[in-house]
Parts: sequence; structure tokens; C-alpha cells
Amino acid sequence: MLKIIPLGGMGNVTRNMFAYETQGKVLLVDCGIGFPDENMPGVDLLIPDISYLENKIDNIVGMILTHGHDDHIAGLPYILPRLGDHFPIYGSPLTAAFAESRIREFQINKRISILDYTQPVKLGPFTIHSIRLTHSIPDTRHLVISTPEGNVYHGSDFKIDLTPIDGIKPDLQKIAEFGQKGISVLLSDSLRSEKEGFSLSEQTLTDSFEREIRTAKGKFIVTTMSSNVHRIQQAVTVAVNHGRKISFIGRSIEQNIKDASRLRMFNLPRQGIVDKRDIRKFPDNQMCVIIAGSQGQTGSSLVRAAAEEHDFVKLKAGDKVIFSSDPIPGNETAVYSTIDTLSQLGIDVVYPDINDNLHVSGHASSGELMLLMELVKPKYFMPIGGTYRHMIQYRKLAVKLGNPEKNVFILDNGQTLILDNPQSAKTGETLQLKNIMVDGYGVGDVGPIVLRDRQSMAKDGIVVAILQLNKETGQLAGKAELVSRGFVFMKESQNLFGEAQRLVEEYLLKHSGKTDFRKIRDEITDKLQDFFFRRTNRHPMILPVIIEI
Amino acid sequence: MLKIIPLGGMGNVTRNMFAYETQGKVLLVDCGIGFPDENMPGVDLLIPDISYLENKIDNIVGMILTHGHDDHIAGLPYILPRLGDHFPIYGSPLTAAFAESRIREFQINKRISILDYTQPVKLGPFTIHSIRLTHSIPDTRHLVISTPEGNVYHGSDFKIDLTPIDGIKPDLQKIAEFGQKGISVLLSDSLRSEKEGFSLSEQTLTDSFEREIRTAKGKFIVTTMSSNVHRIQQAVTVAVNHGRKISFIGRSIEQNIKDASRLRMFNLPRQGIVDKRDIRKFPDNQMCVIIAGSQGQTGSSLVRAAAEEHDFVKLKAGDKVIFSSDPIPGNETAVYSTIDTLSQLGIDVVYPDINDNLHVSGHASSGELMLLMELVKPKYFMPIGGTYRHMIQYRKLAVKLGNPEKNVFILDNGQTLILDNPQSAKTGETLQLKNIMVDGYGVGDVGPIVLRDRQSMAKDGIVVAILQLNKETGQLAGKAELVSRGFVFMKESQNLFGEAQRLVEEYLLKHSGKTDFRKIRDEITDKLQDFFFRRTNRHPMILPVIIEI
Repeated sequence: MLKIIPLGGMGNVTRNMFAYETQGKVLLVDCGIGFPDENMPGVDLLIPDISYLENKIDNIVGMILTHGHDDHIAGLPYILPRLGDHFPIYGSPLTAAFAESRIREFQINKRISILDYTQPVKLGPFTIHSIRLTHSIPDTRHLVISTPEGNVYHGSDFKIDLTPIDGIKPDLQKIAEFGQKGISVLLSDSLRSEKEGFSLSEQTLTDSFEREIRTAKGKFIVTTMSSNVHRIQQAVTVAVNHGRKISFIGRSIEQNIKDASRLRMFNLPRQGIVDKRDIRKFPDNQMCVIIAGSQGQTGSSLVRAAAEEHDFVKLKAGDKVIFSSDPIPGNETAVYSTIDTLSQLGIDVVYPDINDNLHVSGHASSGELMLLMELVKPKYFMPIGGTYRHMIQYRKLAVKLGNPEKNVFILDNGQTLILDNPQSAKTGETLQLKNIMVDGYGVGDVGPIVLRDRQSMAKDGIVVAILQLNKETGQLAGKAELVSRGFVFMKESQNLFGEAQRLVEEYLLKHSGKTDFRKIRDEITDKLQDFFFRRTNRHPMILPVIIEI
Repeated sequence: MLKIIPLGGMGNVTRNMFAYETQGKVLLVDCGIGFPDENMPGVDLLIPDISYLENKIDNIVGMILTHGHDDHIAGLPYILPRLGDHFPIYGSPLTAAFAESRIREFQINKRISILDYTQPVKLGPFTIHSIRLTHSIPDTRHLVISTPEGNVYHGSDFKIDLTPIDGIKPDLQKIAEFGQKGISVLLSDSLRSEKEGFSLSEQTLTDSFEREIRTAKGKFIVTTMSSNVHRIQQAVTVAVNHGRKISFIGRSIEQNIKDASRLRMFNLPRQGIVDKRDIRKFPDNQMCVIIAGSQGQTGSSLVRAAAEEHDFVKLKAGDKVIFSSDPIPGNETAVYSTIDTLSQLGIDVVYPDINDNLHVSGHASSGELMLLMELVKPKYFMPIGGTYRHMIQYRKLAVKLGNPEKNVFILDNGQTLILDNPQSAKTGETLQLKNIMVDGYGVGDVGPIVLRDRQSMAKDGIVVAILQLNKETGQLAGKAELVSRGFVFMKESQNLFGEAQRLVEEYLLKHSGKTDFRKIRDEITDKLQDFFFRRTNRHPMILPVIIEI
């Protein structure tokens, strides 16, 4: 039988990683990072939980990367060292270049092999064909994974853009051909299943940039996702046609443009590229700046420029900043605060709320999702890449096309889909997966307890109670010392702390002679918690430290 | 001269409070709360900084409340005790009822006087006319404040809904009449200045509810802002027409419906109101439930019901939940996570992303904003109730109508607008206002230092280093004790803490004999900070506690 196991990517959009397992061999698809939510303060990112693979490492026959977005490739530097170097990794040329950049940052030297879309790759019992699709990053692929138990169409993030910037259209003929041959399960992007109709072509942005540049009195500044090479290409082409010079600002944009240019997937205008250090040498109305920071990320080039803290670019009244992106859910506050700051500098800021022609989604709307269903004509469906509500909407679309609802599998991370033969799929066991968090150099060392403590201290701070107790008698030596941080302003709360101190001292006096220090610690915690809550309606974390003397 | 001073409400939408000052007398308009942003963990709410009023309390001649939203009235319980009881507060009947409910919760017994829209109120040198307007809460008013220096139109939150549910249309004739008489400054809502055209009438929701209820197999459940009495009225009317019984769930909704019914601003269907405790006694397809929690607020009735933790309402497959609201910026994660949880229960969830006819804004779009400008025909403009980018867009609208850009004042909180005579306005001094935060029982006791500590502990936790030092020799008695919370999982980091402990002990050994404990504390902080950052790439807060023995 064939097992399809989502190790990440179900229900939370990001952190994509899928394992295909048959005849004791494992094929992996994608290896992405996820992003912490508001309940994970201090966490840098999340990676898939690969503990299921740990005793199967020798059985891994390869990994395929579908496209170059971080939620599909940036887990590699964390995961590869645990999986070893014995299997090949494949990706399209741009995907391979982006993935190699990511792992080189961590001094890992693995080569990514090029996935040839004209020829299948054979990896153990798996034969993988790749199909060229369109998305918000060039050189995206879908996969047809053939196994003895049936063929699976792995339809990761995509849209169907019939007029893409590079002219490389989705290969609908090839999709139809595989549909003809017979696909058992279609895994499909479902993120925009809520939207009617078809997503707009990337091409439409050229006209929008054209309209905006005409009224730009000073610098023409465009910010977008740094991997959206085609979007950047359009802005650059429009600016060059208007006689402007181009400068790129932001580490990821600069690196991506370098990679894409080397692969001839980006047309760098021969003349007219200005090093970011030289922007000031040119008149504002002759400059176009492509700058990172479209999500208002702290420390990004745009945010630093808005705060007038960027070394090379100075924004001023008359400049025009185009946000060619939508805020990713969770980033709204950061994005809008950046827009407000720019507005206060007198800059002409253009963003989706005032002009909704400045961004198109890279994901398929319901029309394209149904089109893919009809071309692939699978027996079974498995929406991926969306949250639960998107998968539910995807199921509605499949049912609308006449498919039985029971043939649409809505899975959790770790839940297995089993294909016994091309005509028979069912759900299998569910692996218990953990949130593997990366925080600084630590991978997986931040767990629920550490997070709970961080949340608690974030909300109401901490009170440390230091008690020197006689080892034999349990008597308090000296005073009970109370120190707090993030709770109340201590200097102005001397009465409060004085009372709390007396409370502790009276308790210890009453219990003198007892040396069950764990019990004393627990009771003092309770007493202080009650006292502070009664007096302040706050719940600081109480940390009693007993020093036995 | 007349001073107009925004004490809150500029640049951050909420926390509305304005002071008008002339001839030594002060008139206040609104007294709202604001909401903490992500940089204010643990903070419950914000209130306006009224320190400017503190030596003018006897000169306050009154306060007018424009409408019953919390960001215009809910500051009263915190502010009133500091301003005294000697001046009258006015509001429309519903606004007065809501405001009295708010302050009664705090055992404050102030009566709110009824603002008669047919008669002006005279308060010291101010004559205030009120004009009936429409908004997402009934009984909203605009004010014309007449002073010897000129007339000001105070156009707080509004839209122009010509077909409101209660039939009480905006009094455009009266606005025009005041415009004729001469208005110097128009203060105007600007929140939706980015949107083209006119906002839709509240009335359009009836058809949307009608369409949705027809396909509701189980309970018909509607969640919306609890103060949107007209929205609730429409859902109730539709449900009653379909033979369903009605139940209200959520403290604020229940209270608001009670207040509005008493004032005959809500038509409670004679029969068919079901106490929430009895919902289970009726078949699902005969029930309509109006439930609080449209913003996915933790602890709200809807969120508890979605988690299957509500005592009275059990949601199940076949029920339909309508989100008749947009997520307020910052609440997206909470709202969508609620939608996902409901979807997982098999509930049919309808929300703006899949049906955008289920919510209309209560704020004026650019068309209505320009209409108000044309009816009022002021010399000067002062956008309020939006963030900076909304005020900039508002200014563009005024300029589009032929007004000089310099006549549009975009102010900060605390920045004064001075009217010398009806034809001459200018900006005056800027008061330095603070963020007054409410946290538990504390009002204003959480300041920047406490917040910074909370943020820091949220990100990387805390390490407490307890050092018993000999008072005379500075020598370490016993071991250096290190305790951490929210940093790493201590049990698995014994090596790390062992090393850190040795580092501290070696330092103290080297500096033995010194008793400058402040210096020792600072240096140990630096050493531990460096050490932990080098080893973990994290920055826990270091809290050294020296116990002198």
C-alpha cells in the first residue's frame, strides 16, 4: 500500500512537508518553515516534526521541492542535518538556486539536482513527472507521483496564469494527459477556495505600475514579496521605460535577483542599475527603488527607511511608495503602522485599500481549482495548503462538480491517507506531531512550559521571592526579599511589597520548625498569588527561591 | 479665542475625547477607551490623558457624548472620579442608557441628561445643538458648538444611511441650515476616506439574512457587534418571520437589548423570546440565537460555544453561524481561528470572505464625507477618528472639492487648534500626552519600563541570579543560584546553567574584597547576557539579586 503522510502543511498553510511511503521506501516532498502565532512569543520559526522518519532514514530515496517559497524550502537547513546526505534533492532551476542559497547560509553544501520537466525521475518505487505551473514565484512545478498502488497528483501552491510574464504557461495539455492515464488522488492547493472565479494574471500589474509611475514626482519605490521575481520584473521594466534607474535594497531581494538573473529568469537592464550606496547621487525623479519590507517586518529596509534610519535611502515628500502586496494575516498592524509612518513623512503611499489593482494573488481561486479537478479527474481529493475553512470550501467545489463528498479527505497534520490500489483510498493512523520551534540556536528546546511561562510573564510580569531558610529549623534568616519585573512599577509600590513581605514572614513564623521546603514553596506561591490578585487584579508569575542555610 | 484640544481620538481611531476651551471654560466631548496594541502585553485598555484638565476642573461646564460606542463612552468610569460631579453630562436617550450602564458597573451613580435634538443646550459660553445622524449604533448625534469665536461642527463617527432601520434619517436639512449660518471648522470622521462612493444602507442586511436563513437546517446563529441594535433587529425580524424563536447570549448583548427595548428602540417580539437556559428545549430548526463574540474574543460566548464549553448552547453539524461583522484590525487571527474551529465541528459558517453581503460599515465613505463637507461648507477642516493615512486621504477629498490644502488641519493627540475668530484658525501648542493604561485595578501604574520588561520576558524569558555576598568582604557565601523561567527548559539545560554558574563564581572570586554591589550587579548582568547570547542566540532578562550577609 501507499501511505501519504502530511508532516506539515495541513491546517496552517505553511511548514509544508509530505512523506510518500511504499514498499518500505520514503519519498519526501517539500521541507518548509512555518511562522509562530501570537501564542508563541519569542519563537523565530517552526519546522516540521520529522520524528516519524527517524528510524526510516536509510529508506529515504529522495526529496522533491515544488517551488522556492520559504514555507516549502527553508526548513532544509534544520532538517537536512538530521536526515543525512545519502538521498538526492530535486527542484526546478530557480527552486534549486533558492534552496541552495538557504542551506549555504548554514554552511551546508548539499547540491540540489535539477528537476527536468521533460523526463521523469525514478527514485526507488516512485516515478515522478513534473509539470510547469504558475504561481507568485517563477519556475513552480506540480508533480505526478506514480507508484504501484496508483498515481498521485501533488498540486502544491499554484494559479493558472495564461499570460505569465516569462511566457511559460501552465502545461494544461500535460495535466490532461496524466488525467487521461488515471490519477487516484489529487492533492491540491486550497487557500483561495473561498474566492469566486479566476485569479487575475500577474500581467495586469504592468498597467497599474504604469499608471502610478506617471504621477510619481520623486523616487518611485516598490515593495513586494522578495521572491516575486515577475512582479519585480514588471516594476523594473516600467521604470526603465520611463527613463529611471533601478536600485535594489534588502538582502533577500538582492540575493533573489542575483540568482534569477544568473538563470536568465530576470532581465537585468544592461545599464541603469545603481548600487544602493549611490542612490543619493541621482535626482529623485530618475530613480526607482525596489525595497524589501512589504509586510512591515521589524528591521526590514522599508521599515528602517520609514523611520529615517536607513543608511542609503532617504524617503521624503514627493516620493511615492507602492505596496504591491496584501498584508499576510497577522501582519496587518505592522503593515498599517508602516503606511502611517510613511504618510507622516509626506510620502505618497499607494496600498491595496486605496488601489486594489496593485496586487494579485498567486493562488488559484475556485474557478482554477475546479479547472484542475476537471483536468486531473481523480477519484479522490485531498485539499492541502489551506486552513480548515479553506479545505471545507474546497470540498464544496468538488461536490459541486459531481464528486461524492466522502471522496474528499480533509486531513490533519500527521494523519495518513492510505491507497491500497488506484480505486481504494482510506484514512489510516494519525501520528502525534509536535510543534518544533526554532528560537535562536535552539531547535525544539522551547516547549509548552517555556511558552506558557513567557505568556504569563508577558501579561502580568513576575515576582521573585527569595527566602533564606535554616536547613534544620525552617526558620527565616534575615528578611524575605521580593523583587518584581513587568508587574507594577516597584518604586511606586513600596506599600504593596511591604505588605506582601509581611505576609510571607508571618506565614514562615507560623510554620517555623517545618522543613518540607517544597510544601512551603507551594503555599507561599498560593498566598502571594491570592494577595496580589486581590490587590491588583493581576496574576504575576510567582517564583519563590528558597536558599537553605 | 477658542481652543480645540484632542485629548484622544487622533491617529488611533479609539480613545475619543475632545476639550473645547474659551473664556476660561471647558466643554468636553466624549470620553472613550482605547485598545492596547501588540506592544502592550497584559494591558486591558487605554484611557485619555486628562492631566491638562487637572487644574481646570472647576471650569468644566459639561460633557456631551456623541454616541454609545465604548471608544466614546467607556472611559467615564475611570475619568469621572477624577473630574468630580459638578457638571452635567448629556447624551441621546440610547447613548445615555449605555453610558449609565457602563458607570453603574463601577458603582458610580451619575445621571446622564438627555440631549434634546430640538433644543440647544447652553453650557457657559457654549451653545450646543445636536443633529441626528446614522451610524452602526442607533441614536447617534453630531454637534454644532457655537462660541463667540465661531461655530464648530463636531462630526463624530457617522454614515449617511437614507433608509435606516428605525426610519430616523440623518437630518440633512438641519446640517444645511447650520452650514448656511456659517461653520468655521468641521471636525469629521475620516475612517473610511479611502473607500470610493457611499457606504451601503444597513437595510441591505435584511435580504442577506433572509437568503441565509432559508438554507439553515439547524439553529440560525448570528454574531455581530453587541451595540449594533439595528443589525440585531433585522436578524430577529427575519427569524421571527420564519417562525423561529429568539435567544440572546452574551452579557453585553443582553444588556444592550434590554436598554434599547426599554427605550422602544428595539422591537422585542412579544412571544418567542427564549431564555438562554431553555434553548435545548426547542428543536434546532426553530431557534435563532444572537450571540456575542464576533471578534473571536477569548472568553466570549461564541468562542466558548465553539470550544464546546458553553453551558447553554451546543453547536453542531447542521447549525449555521453568520459572522455579520468584519474583523477589526488586530483581531484577524482570533476571528479566523474561531471560524476554523466552528468549521471543524461541521457547522456551516458564513463570513465576509465567502459572502460579502453580511456586513456593511457604519462609517462614511468618501462620497458621504464629501457630502458632509458640501452641506456644512466650513472654512476649515479637521479630520478625526482615523489614523494618519485616513486623515491624509480626507485632506485629498477636501482639496478635490476646491478647498485649500492649508485649511485642512491634521493634528496629533494633544495638538491644539486655535480659532481667533470665525475666519482665522491656526495650530497652537501641543500637550505632551501619555498613554494611560488600565491593567487590572491599576490605572496609569503600567508605564514604559514595566512594558519593556514584559516584552523582553515574553521574547526570551528571565534568568534570576541569586548571590549571597559578605557585606564586608564581598565574598560569595555558598553557591551562586541561577533560576530561569521562559528561557530554556531548565531540566534539559543543566550544562548551560552549570557553566553560567561557574562564570559568575569565577568573576566573584576575582573581585573578592570589593563591595560596590551596584557595580558587581551590572557586571554580572553583562557577563551573563553575553554568555547566554553566545550560547543560545537569545536575550533573556538577567535579574541579579544580591543578598548581603
